[in-house]
Amino acid sequence: MSDPRAPAPGRPANPTATNRLWGGRFARGPAAIMEQINASIGFDRRLYAQDIAASRAHCQMLVRQNIIPAADGDAILAGLDHVLAEIGSGTFAFKTEHEDIHMNVEARLAALIGPAAGRLHTARSRNDQVATDFRLWLRDAIDQLDGDLRALQAALIVKAELHVDTVLPGLTHLQPAQPVSFGHHLLAYVEMIGRDRGRFADCRRRLNESPLGAAALAGTPYPIDRDLTARLLGFDRPAANSLDAVSDRDFALEFLGAAAILSVHLSRFAEELVYWVSTAIGFVSLSDAFTTGSSIMPQKRNPDAAELVRAKSGRVIGALAGLLIVLKGLPLAYSKDMQEDKEPVFECVDSMALCLAATTGMVEDMTVSAARMRAAATAGFTTATDLADYLVTNLGLPFRAAHHVTGRLVKLAEERGVTLDALPLEVLQSVEPRLTDAVYAELTVEASMGRRTSYGGTAPERVRAAVRAARERFL
Amino acid sequence: MSDPRAPAPGRPANPTATNRLWGGRFARGPAAIMEQINASIGFDRRLYAQDIAASRAHCQMLVRQNIIPAADGDAILAGLDHVLAEIGSGTFAFKTEHEDIHMNVEARLAALIGPAAGRLHTARSRNDQVATDFRLWLRDAIDQLDGDLRALQAALIVKAELHVDTVLPGLTHLQPAQPVSFGHHLLAYVEMIGRDRGRFADCRRRLNESPLGAAALAGTPYPIDRDLTARLLGFDRPAANSLDAVSDRDFALEFLGAAAILSVHLSRFAEELVYWVSTAIGFVSLSDAFTTGSSIMPQKRNPDAAELVRAKSGRVIGALAGLLIVLKGLPLAYSKDMQEDKEPVFECVDSMALCLAATTGMVEDMTVSAARMRAAATAGFTTATDLADYLVTNLGLPFRAAHHVTGRLVKLAEERGVTLDALPLEVLQSVEPRLTDAVYAELTVEASMGRRTSYGGTAPERVRAAVRAARERFL
Amino acid sequence: MSDPRAPAPGRPANPTATNRLWGGRFARGPAAIMEQINASIGFDRRLYAQDIAASRAHCQMLVRQNIIPAADGDAILAGLDHVLAEIGSGTFAFKTEHEDIHMNVEARLAALIGPAAGRLHTARSRNDQVATDFRLWLRDAIDQLDGDLRALQAALIVKAELHVDTVLPGLTHLQPAQPVSFGHHLLAYVEMIGRDRGRFADCRRRLNESPLGAAALAGTPYPIDRDLTARLLGFDRPAANSLDAVSDRDFALEFLGAAAILSVHLSRFAEELVYWVSTAIGFVSLSDAFTTGSSIMPQKRNPDAAELVRAKSGRVIGALAGLLIVLKGLPLAYSKDMQEDKEPVFECVDSMALCLAATTGMVEDMTVSAARMRAAATAGFTTATDLADYLVTNLGLPFRAAHHVTGRLVKLAEERGVTLDALPLEVLQSVEPRLTDAVYAELTVEASMGRRTSYGGTAPERVRAAVRAARERFL
Amino acid sequence: MSDPRAPAPGRPANPTATNRLWGGRFARGPAAIMEQINASIGFDRRLYAQDIAASRAHCQMLVRQNIIPAADGDAILAGLDHVLAEIGSGTFAFKTEHEDIHMNVEARLAALIGPAAGRLHTARSRNDQVATDFRLWLRDAIDQLDGDLRALQAALIVKAELHVDTVLPGLTHLQPAQPVSFGHHLLAYVEMIGRDRGRFADCRRRLNESPLGAAALAGTPYPIDRDLTARLLGFDRPAANSLDAVSDRDFALEFLGAAAILSVHLSRFAEELVYWVSTAIGFVSLSDAFTTGSSIMPQKRNPDAAELVRAKSGRVIGALAGLLIVLKGLPLAYSKDMQEDKEPVFECVDSMALCLAATTGMVEDMTVSAARMRAAATAGFTTATDLADYLVTNLGLPFRAAHHVTGRLVKLAEERGVTLDALPLEVLQSVEPRLTDAVYAELTVEASMGRRTSYGGTAPERVRAAVRAARERFL
Repeated sequence: MSDPRAPAPGRPANPTATNRLWGGRFARGPAAIMEQINASIGFDRRLYAQDIAASRAHCQMLVRQNIIPAADGDAILAGLDHVLAEIGSGTFAFKTEHEDIHMNVEARLAALIGPAAGRLHTARSRNDQVATDFRLWLRDAIDQLDGDLRALQAALIVKAELHVDTVLPGLTHLQPAQPVSFGHHLLAYVEMIGRDRGRFADCRRRLNESPLGAAALAGTPYPIDRDLTARLLGFDRPAANSLDAVSDRDFALEFLGAAAILSVHLSRFAEELVYWVSTAIGFVSLSDAFTTGSSIMPQKRNPDAAELVRAKSGRVIGALAGLLIVLKGLPLAYSKDMQEDKEPVFECVDSMALCLAATTGMVEDMTVSAARMRAAATAGFTTATDLADYLVTNLGLPFRAAHHVTGRLVKLAEERGVTLDALPLEVLQSVEPRLTDAVYAELTVEASMGRRTSYGGTAPERVRAAVRAARERFL
Repeated sequence: MSDPRAPAPGRPANPTATNRLWGGRFARGPAAIMEQINASIGFDRRLYAQDIAASRAHCQMLVRQNIIPAADGDAILAGLDHVLAEIGSGTFAFKTEHEDIHMNVEARLAALIGPAAGRLHTARSRNDQVATDFRLWLRDAIDQLDGDLRALQAALIVKAELHVDTVLPGLTHLQPAQPVSFGHHLLAYVEMIGRDRGRFADCRRRLNESPLGAAALAGTPYPIDRDLTARLLGFDRPAANSLDAVSDRDFALEFLGAAAILSVHLSRFAEELVYWVSTAIGFVSLSDAFTTGSSIMPQKRNPDAAELVRAKSGRVIGALAGLLIVLKGLPLAYSKDMQEDKEPVFECVDSMALCLAATTGMVEDMTVSAARMRAAATAGFTTATDLADYLVTNLGLPFRAAHHVTGRLVKLAEERGVTLDALPLEVLQSVEPRLTDAVYAELTVEASMGRRTSYGGTAPERVRAAVRAARERFL
Repeated sequence: MSDPRAPAPGRPANPTATNRLWGGRFARGPAAIMEQINASIGFDRRLYAQDIAASRAHCQMLVRQNIIPAADGDAILAGLDHVLAEIGSGTFAFKTEHEDIHMNVEARLAALIGPAAGRLHTARSRNDQVATDFRLWLRDAIDQLDGDLRALQAALIVKAELHVDTVLPGLTHLQPAQPVSFGHHLLAYVEMIGRDRGRFADCRRRLNESPLGAAALAGTPYPIDRDLTARLLGFDRPAANSLDAVSDRDFALEFLGAAAILSVHLSRFAEELVYWVSTAIGFVSLSDAFTTGSSIMPQKRNPDAAELVRAKSGRVIGALAGLLIVLKGLPLAYSKDMQEDKEPVFECVDSMALCLAATTGMVEDMTVSAARMRAAATAGFTTATDLADYLVTNLGLPFRAAHHVTGRLVKLAEERGVTLDALPLEVLQSVEPRLTDAVYAELTVEASMGRRTSYGGTAPERVRAAVRAARERFL
Repeated sequence: MSDPRAPAPGRPANPTATNRLWGGRFARGPAAIMEQINASIGFDRRLYAQDIAASRAHCQMLVRQNIIPAADGDAILAGLDHVLAEIGSGTFAFKTEHEDIHMNVEARLAALIGPAAGRLHTARSRNDQVATDFRLWLRDAIDQLDGDLRALQAALIVKAELHVDTVLPGLTHLQPAQPVSFGHHLLAYVEMIGRDRGRFADCRRRLNESPLGAAALAGTPYPIDRDLTARLLGFDRPAANSLDAVSDRDFALEFLGAAAILSVHLSRFAEELVYWVSTAIGFVSLSDAFTTGSSIMPQKRNPDAAELVRAKSGRVIGALAGLLIVLKGLPLAYSKDMQEDKEPVFECVDSMALCLAATTGMVEDMTVSAARMRAAATAGFTTATDLADYLVTNLGLPFRAAHHVTGRLVKLAEERGVTLDALPLEVLQSVEPRLTDAVYAELTVEASMGRRTSYGGTAPERVRAAVRAARERFL
């Protein structure tokens, strides 16, 4: 650096973690390093509501099973409610010296209700506790994501219905291929998001088993009732093997896997948005709400939100790869490596929530230029296939011959710089004398689109039915 | 290179692709480059059975719907059977000039039955054809993997039943924590594999929709019956949107995601095997069949198979990341990028099949040294928790006091280099006078293990029940 | 599958590995599984020239140091030459029972020259041997890649020189921003490729240390001369630590890292090509050599090669992630996991070679439509910044005021659907009365481009100098 | 959730981002979504010192080139110093409405010095500004990481020197192979870290070009002096192409690649530490400072720090994959996707700094049990190779015969449960009558180790020289 006054950069944003001695020495001593590398309260505080809910259920069970006295149980439940309220209202003082959310809650509980607090940890350990909290949290997050996904489907379906008859050039290799309904195109994403929802739902179902009672790794001698705590927490059943319950995090991996696929779907739609709103294409425009402008070029609408949605796939796929790597080769049961499971999941949930909100917003916000879409769809001879089909069906030409005739006509049109249906009849007849005026009606993009009536096809009548079906299946 | 006679290395193993000119120039000209980068027959030939099955179904439907004459249909079906037999018997000559499996089959069909072969491609395109073939192939692969997974569970359950009463030191942080049943430990993997099977089954269910009839991207004007082809091919239904059907590959991503999680599970078990069979630990030994030896050190049994299983997770996770990247940001509908979807899936299926065979083989092959396991389990004061529990339950000590007493006794035992249950009674009583001979029975690893009777716990009676339940749930 | 005649699919392409029993059972028995999972000759045969070169050097050194008799040394050298010739001519019979390339060569050597062959392995082990071979191979591969990269730079520079004065709309967010020279744009990639070459060169320099003589892991008691073998093989020096020499593969990781960055650079250029050649944009066209067509739509030029180049980044990044995962958490020294190091590197080298050949070919092949580029550059008010600059510099307006005036004029032009320089003077003066005819000369894309004369800028004179400099720096 | 009082979880930790409406709706409106997805001030504030340093240099150049008046320049420089002081002292109020660090600084500058502030942005754009800041930041971070890496090497070298003569069982496949010096083993990591430093240095050298003056993408018409700003900021030269300068982020990718390799090296050492400190192995112990204990099991020293270092490789590799994905397929020049470049780099720098501090601390802290290492090294017949060598060298046996004799003796020792050098002479002679007492001296682990005197080998004299050389090369 040329400026010696600049403080040492490149270091944690957290000012307490930054000090001049750090260049070469991370912290003033081993204790400081350990605190920094070890404490998880900086991120696992997000589990607070689940941690307290799980403790409440555990406490109720301990009382019911006569493992702790009812009076202590009442004190604990009241104390936990108090802690919950404190955290909810922002008055709770999290402390790094208490390492994690579990210890922070328990320490505060002890301060509030005294020694009875100590009984709460009977017949459990932090190993089953954190596994329980994390599953509860992720279950809630999935429920919220499902709502976000449904909202995106709703926005797409609404827009699709408006644009059943809007003609878009269907592309392969970014080259015009055949005309398709813009509504049909949007419904393709409704299908993808539908499968994404299915993947999250499967993940939710599979993770919905209670680790509580697995204790440190081997179960517990106390006469606990794991069915009861599972039921109280909305789990389908207790996990069947204590070692598995505290050792595995495949539910987090499955979640990240589903999110990675979703992020790829969103990145594809974002790519299309960036392309559609570009000046050269102009199929769609977005309002100021979802673009950034320039003080000089008033026509400029940079699709920043779409670009960021596209980019976030990197972060989500990176999070998935990262957690797979953390777990690779870890022996059973618990290792501290597993503390690295939460941050990627939290980041991924936040990213996906933000991306879904932005994408839904853009779908709702977008203005479609049917004229520019249609103009692009008519360029590129997208109805050449239809002309060939016409020759086969109406004039009885063999397919090879039909292709040949079509090829010659396309060449003539290309040379004149016109579309197929702008070729004069005499030109058509110079190649195939039996052609009549009737052919023109077949060469419009609307006719081409309307003809593809096979199930799942782009004919407007099909797309209209698909809109109805999508509403029933997804909304 | 010091040796000028050495031929140019670092180039494709395929000898036809290697030539001296290539150093610096990849191929003799653009055509050669394109053929090399474009042709997929080198790998997609694996789809041959599915490609022919899909063509048979499509042909039957075309006849039924009167789209092609019955006589042509018969000729096509007979011809396809012939091609299938040729490929199955290894007499088929694949040609790169025909690019892919679809064209290779069709060209051969044309050679066999003449122009009627041309009618087979009516109302379909390579876009829906390859999507159909790939789904069929993956469905078959999943069915076979499920059998392999079930076989691994069976081997684990058999071994678990033999070792319900075998005491293993349960580890956290690779440090002894509490004694656990070795059978219980093996059942933890039965649970993981059970969830893996669930993930593959969900993937199979979700992919089991027929793209056939989506044609290039927009559907087709021909009066096809997509329900019929779907039914003939064992699909649950036709895919609802033609663009989605040819554009998405999320089924392959979902498969790779499930495989990546499985590979992590297998890597964890492999890590444990490598550790267990090491000279220093010696819990398990493997026969010559699954180890490699050394001509000098006869005791050496390098667990090569386990190490390779552990390593394969890298390849599978890499394949998952790779395909996510291929699809990221691709606009609809088909782009050539998507040709990169098959190789990672093929490699992953092969890797997983091999890893499962090797792991199942090692489980069946392994010899357990119960004595070394028990010895290790008694070291490390793994029953200290039990002593504290005893003091609470039998002498009525508060938990804190019980911990304190236990800590002092452990320290005394550590100083003498003995286990807790080897401390003389007078030493015990010097710390807590009310202790009697009765305590010794509580301090054995068997007692500790037997006491953890909570559901999912390691007590042998629980593990025996878990073995029975696992048989019912999984085999 | 609906067709029971279809053979079991989803299995290794290698016919010897496929058998009907495999469904559920991978192989007939443990031995078969081990052979399949263990043998590396299927891929490491690519190291043959390096393996023989390293053996030759080792043999020469053993003779020089009087560790083996000169006569034996002569026999070994002659035998190795023979083996090299056999492999080079394709007459060598590789055998899976000999596991890897080292054993295959040695077994053949023994068959050729008898017991003296056994002396070759004195004072080395397969651990240092494979590390040596792999480094030599990668060094050669890097040298060839460097040639390929240089060839791509040459093609870009040639094209850049032709198009110094060709105006392209410089895009940000896929929106027109400012006019740039197409030559300047191509030179941006010359810079990127230049840094890629630097990364490969650094990797080559760092890997160029000889592991030979590290033996199994600890060095050897024989009086070997590691400097001599290093020198004979073109290494800069022997590796300084025997454990490090056989345990680490960071050179392969560094190579894959450099390749991943290169693949991203190529994917960006490929994305631009796909966009440029699309019907809607039409800046560039590619000949049949690098596109695939359609028998119906003669104008269609699917840029398959560009799409495949774009997609290959997935494979390369996946290979990088995969090998990082393999090595993560491996204790020293050698573990069998490390056998997984070669396939990702081989695949990556092949992919990059193919992608570079294809990209270079496309650059050489492409035809530029300067007219369409210029037309697009004049749309989008790309010279609005220039107008504002003019107002500041010539009329002395403060920047804010200049922006304001520009914004109003752009709005007027937008309403009329014309470019800025097509606004009549009276319209200009209605907003800023002091404007004169002189301003028009400043509003052309050529003027805008020509004005950016700062070092590294897009003014043709700068770009011409940059072309000359690039030739000197890179060719 | 069973507890309806629990607030909606799973949402951003930032309380201002959380609101009840958010479940299903991300934010109250498009504006809020855009602000959240678009603003980067939450993380790019870490660039503040670099941003101000770059502005200072730019300002000095503008004055020198007479582009802005000297008086304005003085005001700007004084104002920037003021802003720097405010941020440094924590009194600066960052505002999300100003989006990023550049706008926050500039807005504050305007408030401090008035309209002259507006002149600072002459002849630059945020595109070249952020590229400049980020390079400066990363350069500083690399310099600090290099110090950390050097500190780790220093700790390893100090420990290696202490343990030149300490015998460790050298492992392959986690099985004892040959005795090695523990100092030699530690020096293997010194080599790896040395190459890591080389990679970071190469990255630093390559990134040390100034983008400043590239402006938005095309350069600028102002008569700027890019050499001057480059020099003032310590860059080696200005970047040669304006498009490349604002479009590429390969320097960040190269940094992440080097960090990923480093993280794998650290994960390997961490794995060894976890193994060494485990109760079953006991080669090394760590103090309370780097372990966590248990109130019950006083012997328990959970190596949490080592486990976290091992796990962090997941995060770093994920960050690398993530940024490669972000950049894959992005057309030139700037896209908003590129805003995703900073967070992965920041996290990676923080993770690596923490991991290096922890690893260095553990190396300094660790206590070595030479006795347990030696005991383990003598088990496993690690000197069998030495016996065979002895037979060849001293009794003139052919190598095959020597192997055979050794194998029989090892088998006899194994049956008796003793080491080779504990076999009575008559037993030795029963297999090879010419053996004498002299052989025993050759069979100790010290003799084996001492004999490996080849360069890079484990003989103490070699290791002592290697320690000296390492000091010279690295410290």
